[in-house]
Amino acid sequence: MRLSDIPTPALCVELDAFERNIERMHSFFADKPCNVRPHLKAHKTPAIARIQRDAGGVGFCCATLSEAEVFAAEGFDDLLIANEVCDPSKVERLIALSKKVKLTVAVDSRASCDIIVGTDLSVLLDINVGMPRCGVAPSEAVELARVATRAGLNVKGIMGYEGHVTVIEDVDKRAEATRKSMEVLLGVADDLRDNGYAVDIVSAGSTLTYDVTGTIDGITEIQAGSYALMDTEFAKSSPFEEALRIMCTLVSVQGNIAVLDAGLKTMSIDHGNPGLFPEARADVLYLSDEHTSLVIHDDFDAKVGDRMWLRPSHVDPTVNLHDELYAFRGEEVEEVWPVVARGYRGP
Amino acid sequence: MRLSDIPTPALCVELDAFERNIERMHSFFADKPCNVRPHLKAHKTPAIARIQRDAGGVGFCCATLSEAEVFAAEGFDDLLIANEVCDPSKVERLIALSKKVKLTVAVDSRASCDIIVGTDLSVLLDINVGMPRCGVAPSEAVELARVATRAGLNVKGIMGYEGHVTVIEDVDKRAEATRKSMEVLLGVADDLRDNGYAVDIVSAGSTLTYDVTGTIDGITEIQAGSYALMDTEFAKSSPFEEALRIMCTLVSVQGNIAVLDAGLKTMSIDHGNPGLFPEARADVLYLSDEHTSLVIHDDFDAKVGDRMWLRPSHVDPTVNLHDELYAFRGEEVEEVWPVVARGYRGP
Repeated sequence: MRLSDIPTPALCVELDAFERNIERMHSFFADKPCNVRPHLKAHKTPAIARIQRDAGGVGFCCATLSEAEVFAAEGFDDLLIANEVCDPSKVERLIALSKKVKLTVAVDSRASCDIIVGTDLSVLLDINVGMPRCGVAPSEAVELARVATRAGLNVKGIMGYEGHVTVIEDVDKRAEATRKSMEVLLGVADDLRDNGYAVDIVSAGSTLTYDVTGTIDGITEIQAGSYALMDTEFAKSSPFEEALRIMCTLVSVQGNIAVLDAGLKTMSIDHGNPGLFPEARADVLYLSDEHTSLVIHDDFDAKVGDRMWLRPSHVDPTVNLHDELYAFRGEEVEEVWPVVARGYRGP
Repeated sequence: MRLSDIPTPALCVELDAFERNIERMHSFFADKPCNVRPHLKAHKTPAIARIQRDAGGVGFCCATLSEAEVFAAEGFDDLLIANEVCDPSKVERLIALSKKVKLTVAVDSRASCDIIVGTDLSVLLDINVGMPRCGVAPSEAVELARVATRAGLNVKGIMGYEGHVTVIEDVDKRAEATRKSMEVLLGVADDLRDNGYAVDIVSAGSTLTYDVTGTIDGITEIQAGSYALMDTEFAKSSPFEEALRIMCTLVSVQGNIAVLDAGLKTMSIDHGNPGLFPEARADVLYLSDEHTSLVIHDDFDAKVGDRMWLRPSHVDPTVNLHDELYAFRGEEVEEVWPVVARGYRGP
């Protein structure tokens, strides 16, 4: 199958760039004690997860219980739900899943332990290392370990997501902020050990901090998702290449306005409007539900029916809109990858 | 089934508000020559379309060919694809569909006619009435009618979307801008008739202009989608009520930050962050892929495991993220509506 055979809009993966991204991340960790635990929320695609596993990924992260269920059914047997699961209607599903695979879940409060009390689940204590989202205050981690243990949970270690540093574009400043967050996390590990708790797992990191976080002594694994497919926003601050592209058809040209058949239902714009490939033949004016309106430059001879590429600004919510990914090289579609865990269900 | 039985996050429809919205729109047109042609792109849900049909909707609009295929299979037999279909790989599907139902497609250029040349399809000429998107320039409409007719297409009339006026919040100014756009559209209808073309259909409008556009002599039908479910953005400028809500679980409370289990994969934020229901107990800080972080007020005793409601800011791309809608009244879920035409495929 060739690209021209596929109806538009279609979400495509340029395989040369994708393979270089996989190689870059996993070869970096090949000789290091830290492992990569790829985050499945970025792509929700078993075909990609298999490539990450073959490249050296050790276990996987999920954002949601339903992702974990899908990937367990696909044969992945070491899954960390890197979020709190606090909906009582999901507890039986958690228990069932923990009997099939090595499952670990995050907790960050007495209440999040109470909801899964007595389940014998393995947990990581989710530590707030600076981002205003989930995570217990570092000073309360030892007490949380006591609460979790008393609730019959198996505390395997800790995790902390330094997501707040990923917006720092300056490499040195980002590295410094990352190290500060990891000092907090490793301080918690010390506190726990001082209080008699084993801390086998110290899980942290992201695509934008992997080379700092992953080389700090004591961090045992990196959670990273975006590196494989990469978007315009994270590509600014990382060595990975944009492998994700949206193939569109030009449906209208009126004066200097050209309109593509892909809009808000094809890509997420929470990280900004998409880029164009090749660049600089037009500017994105705005997106509506089904269209992207462009202002075209004088030297761009746009014709209705032509195909064009958009470059998405945010991998995760864009892939989540699609049921399949077209993996291509040149003009040839080598594989169609079903986005099996696509869906909206949250943690 | 009760709301508390449904795992979160879940997209829900409050039936009392929904039913009032349906009644308000369709009773307005009950004694008028203009019809309502509900736009299916807003909800992609056959169960809702049936309610709109029973309320008096005459035919339906689709944004995409795949929506039209889904609704044809569900028994809807008068479908206008209110967009240009310019991907040659879709022409055979268009022809097949036109043999099953009364199908009409938009064209706005010689090229868009060439792509479906010789298909005998019924078309509307899409006229630009001021919005920088699709639509032929009004002065070129007669020439386009000639081109379309020579291409073997059946020109049934014209359409023009005054979407650019929907951002005008002042009611009188919006009405004035709407009337100007409709003057342009009706001027084109006159030009065409002067040149010997029948113009049976003059299709225009939106949820935010229905009461102006739909009462202008010569407009035969209104395209409206958002009115049935309604979001925070359009509710500011229309009499319809927000019927769409996202049920979430509070998964973390740390200091004055509370975190919900619904984020960018559960709702679109291209029209802004979601609102809260009930209001004023917290402010939305930001959304990430799977979470909404709130700053909670002192008087809000937020507890992990509690359920809360978010109010989405944009109906269409939010519904598109979900596989089902939970239609509820009070605490009771009366029906689960599959979002059968959910998907990313564009025009």
